[in-house]
Amino acid sequence: MNPKPATQPGTLSYEQAGVNYDLIDPLKVAAQRAAAATGSHLSAHGFSEVKASRGESAYVVDVGPFYIASIVECLGSKALVADEMHKLTGKSYYDSIAQDTIAMAINDLITVGATPLVVQAYWAAGGSDWFGDAQRSQALVAGWKRACDVCGVAWGGGETPALAGIVEEGRIDLAASCTGLVNPKERLSLGDQLAPGDAIVLLASSGIHANGLSLARKLVERLPQGYLTPLPDGTSYGEALLAPTVLYSPVTEALFKAGIQPRYCANITGHGWRKLLRHPAQFTYRIHSVPPVTPVLKFIQQHAKQDDREAYSTLNMGAGFAIFVKAEDAQRTVDVAQAAGVSAIVAGSIEAGPKQLLIEPLGIRFGDDDLQLR
Amino acid sequence: MNPKPATQPGTLSYEQAGVNYDLIDPLKVAAQRAAAATGSHLSAHGFSEVKASRGESAYVVDVGPFYIASIVECLGSKALVADEMHKLTGKSYYDSIAQDTIAMAINDLITVGATPLVVQAYWAAGGSDWFGDAQRSQALVAGWKRACDVCGVAWGGGETPALAGIVEEGRIDLAASCTGLVNPKERLSLGDQLAPGDAIVLLASSGIHANGLSLARKLVERLPQGYLTPLPDGTSYGEALLAPTVLYSPVTEALFKAGIQPRYCANITGHGWRKLLRHPAQFTYRIHSVPPVTPVLKFIQQHAKQDDREAYSTLNMGAGFAIFVKAEDAQRTVDVAQAAGVSAIVAGSIEAGPKQLLIEPLGIRFGDDDLQLR
Repeated sequence: MNPKPATQPGTLSYEQAGVNYDLIDPLKVAAQRAAAATGSHLSAHGFSEVKASRGESAYVVDVGPFYIASIVECLGSKALVADEMHKLTGKSYYDSIAQDTIAMAINDLITVGATPLVVQAYWAAGGSDWFGDAQRSQALVAGWKRACDVCGVAWGGGETPALAGIVEEGRIDLAASCTGLVNPKERLSLGDQLAPGDAIVLLASSGIHANGLSLARKLVERLPQGYLTPLPDGTSYGEALLAPTVLYSPVTEALFKAGIQPRYCANITGHGWRKLLRHPAQFTYRIHSVPPVTPVLKFIQQHAKQDDREAYSTLNMGAGFAIFVKAEDAQRTVDVAQAAGVSAIVAGSIEAGPKQLLIEPLGIRFGDDDLQLR
Repeated sequence: MNPKPATQPGTLSYEQAGVNYDLIDPLKVAAQRAAAATGSHLSAHGFSEVKASRGESAYVVDVGPFYIASIVECLGSKALVADEMHKLTGKSYYDSIAQDTIAMAINDLITVGATPLVVQAYWAAGGSDWFGDAQRSQALVAGWKRACDVCGVAWGGGETPALAGIVEEGRIDLAASCTGLVNPKERLSLGDQLAPGDAIVLLASSGIHANGLSLARKLVERLPQGYLTPLPDGTSYGEALLAPTVLYSPVTEALFKAGIQPRYCANITGHGWRKLLRHPAQFTYRIHSVPPVTPVLKFIQQHAKQDDREAYSTLNMGAGFAIFVKAEDAQRTVDVAQAAGVSAIVAGSIEAGPKQLLIEPLGIRFGDDDLQLR
């Protein structure tokens, strides 16, 4: 990631909000190299890794009759917003952030074409006391269960450690692991068939989802009413931030049933729309239509004084998930998504050309050097 | 878990060391009930859960040609010992605790008969700064990689979030998820064939492994030299605590190759030897031989003034993993384990009778009510 300098006085960028990728990246690179060197172990068991899945959102192994995909993902700092809002309103938002946590795992897993089958819960609290709050605990369990129901996954089990001295007192670190199958194997969508002419379909987000929360929390310091600042529609900023992330697996499963095979998918999380450049191939991604910006994201952009380029490079700006399909499948993909309850638009298409994302309605260009994930 | 009252003045029990299961258990029960209700979702995908795996160490799904097992596990508080020892010695122990973390996941996964295939890393730090310490980061990566090499698993990827405000500054929450296959399906070892006459083989531990660390850390307050207190063999207490957990999958894989089918396995972690009572069936487990107690565990028992009953109910006391096999396979199981580099003994056998564990050489009895895990 190459942070862009803030261009306007008072602008609050993602880096200023406290996450310094320059410190994390050397470890990540070392870990990725070491991890890549372990893929060959699978041959001793008669299996093999799908090399193209290295660097993608989920890791894929060929076990013969199908592929197994697996992942672990964490919620990040959204629990801190839930904790603050609980203080202000007395309400527990742990049902919402339970869904966020599962969404972080499932929405990544499905990008490779997998059907999520099993979720494991990882709830690491700052002490045994955390679990003693029955209202909060029940909300967490109920939200987790409901998200599993929506996605048709089995909740296999998990860990509920009390980690005093590691996790802060009164806090919890929420994460989820997920295992799924690409079945039949033709569902694998790692982008090897991605081609000029393919359409880009964007699925609506519900709000900030679970990325950009450091920025969103930092912003509160600038708001006299803090999390209770009303948005134009009357919802409080905090409440709007806590709208749970959309679970997209009902859409990808419905597409399979409708006979539509995505060629590639990108979960729009950290790095915002730059995630559309995720696939390693050299293509130009031309966007002709942008979805409506969710009110809470518009609010953040305004108060953080971000120009469009900064906002689209960090936040999902109304688009939570991208599906790349053959042009002839584009409208039907939109229809299937909407039938599954998720708004969608045909937003653009892929062209031969240098690797870049052109968001034409906004006059934004992101080049290859704007996204370094591998 | 039914904590036993401390019986001797000055005794330090596990509960006194800071983990209060009474607060965690209601959440656990609610989560287990909700989780159990999601198992039926698998039928929509043409699969089904293996019900007997609920409450076992890993969750198992029948996907037709084989079973998929999955799990998420955390290291717990052992990282705090590594951090203290780093301050005292300047050495990084993160290679050791990386192995511990993987062992927590793998040693649980293999209990059901699975071959571990993929590990995902979950390293949640208290801030980006954590990752800036190159010595520590490299030790973590190197230890993680080596453990994957030992177990023949592919390191698929993972998450390295910086969670300021949730994880304490300067600390890290280490966890691992693992996915594996039970293949062929006959390898499933959920204990349905467990029977009177079966032998109990115990595999040696290397030390405290990653359970009982709250107690071990609490004990430091009683030692004038703290972590640098020498054990009889000259090793410091801290160094001995940080001996990495034995990885047992090379043993279970070697047993498969040797044609030996475990009927059940128990990873001896929290609750110590009471884990031998894990299987729900009503049997008497009679132990006629106990393995040598690892020096660091003997040291803890002495300084925490625990009697044998308390010590064996909390710590592994030299036995890290139990394999239940047909009597005729017992000696060969020991031989295979030793050929794989892990000491083992035939420790006892299963009898018809009330559910209890009799550790005869020590005159200890644990009854059914001493272990409530489900």
